[in-house]
Amino acid sequence: MEKLKIVKIGGNLIDDDQKLKDILQDFSNLNDKKILIHGGGKLASALSTQLGIVPKLHEGRRITDKESLKIVTMVYAGFINKSIVAYLQSFGDNALGLTGADLDMIRSHRRIVTNIDYGFVGDIDEVNGEALLNLMNSNVVPVFCALTHNGKGDLLNTNADTIASALAASLSAHFSVDLIYLFEKGGVLHKPDDDNSVIDNINLSTYEKLKKDGTISSGMIPKLDNAFTALKEGVSSVFVGASGISKERKGTILSLD
Amino acid sequence: MEKLKIVKIGGNLIDDDQKLKDILQDFSNLNDKKILIHGGGKLASALSTQLGIVPKLHEGRRITDKESLKIVTMVYAGFINKSIVAYLQSFGDNALGLTGADLDMIRSHRRIVTNIDYGFVGDIDEVNGEALLNLMNSNVVPVFCALTHNGKGDLLNTNADTIASALAASLSAHFSVDLIYLFEKGGVLHKPDDDNSVIDNINLSTYEKLKKDGTISSGMIPKLDNAFTALKEGVSSVFVGASGISKERKGTILSLD
Repeated sequence: MEKLKIVKIGGNLIDDDQKLKDILQDFSNLNDKKILIHGGGKLASALSTQLGIVPKLHEGRRITDKESLKIVTMVYAGFINKSIVAYLQSFGDNALGLTGADLDMIRSHRRIVTNIDYGFVGDIDEVNGEALLNLMNSNVVPVFCALTHNGKGDLLNTNADTIASALAASLSAHFSVDLIYLFEKGGVLHKPDDDNSVIDNINLSTYEKLKKDGTISSGMIPKLDNAFTALKEGVSSVFVGASGISKERKGTILSLD
Repeated sequence: MEKLKIVKIGGNLIDDDQKLKDILQDFSNLNDKKILIHGGGKLASALSTQLGIVPKLHEGRRITDKESLKIVTMVYAGFINKSIVAYLQSFGDNALGLTGADLDMIRSHRRIVTNIDYGFVGDIDEVNGEALLNLMNSNVVPVFCALTHNGKGDLLNTNADTIASALAASLSAHFSVDLIYLFEKGGVLHKPDDDNSVIDNINLSTYEKLKKDGTISSGMIPKLDNAFTALKEGVSSVFVGASGISKERKGTILSLD
């Protein structure tokens, strides 16, 4: 099967313009078919602060009210997404910036209210695999930001890691998909504060052990859960690390066994 | 030839959410192929003010420095563009939000500095007619905001009226194109302050007269210059008015003779 690389960039990799350009140049050097997904929470929080809007959090997770949705739409779909598209075009990639609303790419529903209402936050229902495949076959390079829609006129804030794994799973019937999560840490770490303690390989059984003994905790668990879900749904490989898209990679390789 | 409607919405039509929804519902009722272009200067100015950034103007025209470019990218390509896309999707149109950088749709160059440097403002060089035609043939509804790119990684702020007429001219070889400019005034007016003084028809020779006697001045001249350029380049009809996309229209019809 033809190869497809799905690359998610997040953390502080996109806050710094020169760092972002370097990563995009590396991404652009990939000769395989490819998709980019980006976050941008830090820039959104910075704009919130500038506008005097205090971010509302519940157990560390952002509550997206109407005003916050406007801010993330401006920052994710506007500033970050279109800056990336313009850079990639200058490097020769035929980039197209997308939210899940564009071409009805990703449908979601507003997260069910239990004890807490997260507001305009979406959990994914369906990826429009046919439309995505059409773009792939036209050599378009889709650039997704962390927004989906419910088909009723609402944009919904949606985790970029989850979008990456959902896109990867949806295309795994047509391509041999490598899913690459790039973030500021050097990979999954034995010791959270020591970037030199990268764990080279994790499989499903070692993952359970590392969770049980507390080595892997908090923010990494949803990311890795997404990764293992993608592997179970047919994605060929998952890599979590700080650098290396077309070049040598440093980080953690995940596998089912 | 197959019909194509190119609709530009601007002015205060997009500031009010309910007014915007009504216009988009009307646009959605069009059964012809169609393209939407939107402005958003007022919302961009409002965000500037909120952020404490004083808009820089020269003879009434905005100077787009780096910070202003970021603001218009957030407002035009982010908030307004994606809100429109989500609404149109909910009305059954397969909308796709675009800047000129996406799919390399519209190339421009930074405006030549003479006595004044307008900053990140682009004058259009070329529309990617082939990519646009592909979207038309796939029944996609493109939604363009007022940004283009120079192919070197820079987004450039570009007049939405000019984008509309450039797209119209580029597609006039393939479609019978109706170009529709909607804005807050009821059309081209005999008396600027009297919305009931709409001029029903203007051709190239009456246009020259109306400019000479001062009836048409200031802000309307670039808009109408764009319109007549489009007519000369093969666009079938141009309409300037306050309302009526799929329904009865009220406003001014422009023609060459």
